[in-house]
Amino acid sequence: MNVERLNSTLAKIAPVDARWIEQARTRQLQLTKPPGSLGRLEEIANRLAAIQGTLSPSADPAKVLLFAADHGVCAEGVNPYPQAVTAQMVMNFLRGGAAINALARTVGADLEIIDVGVATELPSIDGLIRKPVARGTRNFCEEPAMSEKDALAALSVGMDAAADAIQQGYRLLAIGEMGIGNTTAASAVTAALTRLAPESVVGRGTGADEGCMQRKRSAIERALDRHLREIHTPLDLLARLGGLEIAAMCGVCLEASSRRCAVLIDGFISTAAAAVAVRFNPLVGDYLIAAHRSTEPGHAPLLEQISQRPLLDLEMRLGEGTGAALAIPILRAAVEAFTSMATFESAGVAEAL
Amino acid sequence: MNVERLNSTLAKIAPVDARWIEQARTRQLQLTKPPGSLGRLEEIANRLAAIQGTLSPSADPAKVLLFAADHGVCAEGVNPYPQAVTAQMVMNFLRGGAAINALARTVGADLEIIDVGVATELPSIDGLIRKPVARGTRNFCEEPAMSEKDALAALSVGMDAAADAIQQGYRLLAIGEMGIGNTTAASAVTAALTRLAPESVVGRGTGADEGCMQRKRSAIERALDRHLREIHTPLDLLARLGGLEIAAMCGVCLEASSRRCAVLIDGFISTAAAAVAVRFNPLVGDYLIAAHRSTEPGHAPLLEQISQRPLLDLEMRLGEGTGAALAIPILRAAVEAFTSMATFESAGVAEAL
Repeated sequence: MNVERLNSTLAKIAPVDARWIEQARTRQLQLTKPPGSLGRLEEIANRLAAIQGTLSPSADPAKVLLFAADHGVCAEGVNPYPQAVTAQMVMNFLRGGAAINALARTVGADLEIIDVGVATELPSIDGLIRKPVARGTRNFCEEPAMSEKDALAALSVGMDAAADAIQQGYRLLAIGEMGIGNTTAASAVTAALTRLAPESVVGRGTGADEGCMQRKRSAIERALDRHLREIHTPLDLLARLGGLEIAAMCGVCLEASSRRCAVLIDGFISTAAAAVAVRFNPLVGDYLIAAHRSTEPGHAPLLEQISQRPLLDLEMRLGEGTGAALAIPILRAAVEAFTSMATFESAGVAEAL
Repeated sequence: MNVERLNSTLAKIAPVDARWIEQARTRQLQLTKPPGSLGRLEEIANRLAAIQGTLSPSADPAKVLLFAADHGVCAEGVNPYPQAVTAQMVMNFLRGGAAINALARTVGADLEIIDVGVATELPSIDGLIRKPVARGTRNFCEEPAMSEKDALAALSVGMDAAADAIQQGYRLLAIGEMGIGNTTAASAVTAALTRLAPESVVGRGTGADEGCMQRKRSAIERALDRHLREIHTPLDLLARLGGLEIAAMCGVCLEASSRRCAVLIDGFISTAAAAVAVRFNPLVGDYLIAAHRSTEPGHAPLLEQISQRPLLDLEMRLGEGTGAALAIPILRAAVEAFTSMATFESAGVAEAL
């Protein structure tokens, strides 16, 4: 991809039309419930109405786009799991054995697994979308995680996945990821975006012990020292501190916004991707729905920075899109109440005195 | 019902076996995810395993039991809606037009509507379970809301509904209610249970204005003055300050616990019923799952008193079982992950170093 396609997509992103929000609010008041009593379900239905430009919004069909990639920063000993686990988990996804398989199945969402840069060679297996841009990033303590060209290519993988899904008829996209080491990259991106100190945005990820945590903090500090002054654009940020899956998820947010499709963001890493997308174009925020707050300490400030209030807070910290999948039934319920409830008039129910 | 059946049910309630929790925790550690990373989903799956006494727990099929009844305290002007709305909403439930219909449908739960004491005569309509104990309660500002006999009869309606559902094969029950004026009764019950001042447990309910709010507080203060020193047992509490639907939901909690079936509690009013059930027998708490925290100010202290942490906090305040219905997909997801995920060994995924 060249930068022109990116710029053309960015230029296509329009704000949602506030008149739909007003019309949806008026409709909510006619439904047989005390005004506002469905709380955030009303807010979500109204937002989906505005995003889709209709009083008959839908959260179905929904698809989870899960991007897998590896991280050069693993060389710094930032993760208790070996890097090979990224590829092993990709195989687990394709065989249906991971948490996201269970959750996508139970909420009735489709799931697509995209290799955008796994380091370990993956055996031949049905269902894997192979779009590797590189075999993982480089160690950002020593050099940029990737070239600008690779960052654009990874963005493009996400944009293509979103465009294909929307053309296939999906009305809701959820983003998820797998990549050993990617909380370190997400923490670096978060520190760069929020200017918070690394120690306040670094968490235990998959389960780092104190030694791991110290190496994680140190790696991020060195990366910020090396790169921060060279970062002038969101693309610089992705290339120097990001990850291939982070860039791809960012691409999903951009493409979906340009096509007026809502994107459910998952945990810390996917929110880092979404926050970069908001830097590319603040209007992207209109199309994002934050599914949950993870226990990673960088997640809450990042959500706050992009003005997103998560729907769920279940102490999850798994990634893979699991939190996003779990929010799909809430969106579906919000839409079902909004579109199928009787009105006070049609049901013959008296309104408040 | 006589008090012997109640006592016999109370005597049948056994604590869940902590060994199942331990076995479930051991199993969770084998699944292909970082330990603990599914957060409260793991806690819920482990609890359902312990409640059901199996490592293959299920949240399906699920049924929402919705009890409708009226409240004599409406004579004090505590609610902006006319009392006739209780019956009008019952008709709306039976025609499928209310929020709980939309939510039960979208989460795949069955819904049963039980008249346990609606004041307005209900026209003939299919599907309504008619078990009226009285045509609403009396005004508890002036006399006990109901006799002990009627409280026992209403408890029995709930116990029968739970017993029938469990015999039909339901593995999860959710409780909901409809009754104009019932936040006033629930606030009185909450003040009696928690000894908190009425003003701190009184909220706007369906949308009380300041005048309504003052009348609500005053009604509760007068009711407490009149009855509190006469309340020595949970049954006294139900009879003097409760409601027929509150007693029935309490009966569901007792019967379900005695049959090792989990009960999802909904908002403020159903939690008041559950809290009375916990007073009858503290072991009931083992079988309760709090679905959500409503915006009613009395709800959070009541949940705290029975040591329940709600799963959702979506600013809902509708009742009908809507919050409970919305939590069903979370329970289902928790169980699906627990029972269907691959283990590190079976998937060939490396564990943490």
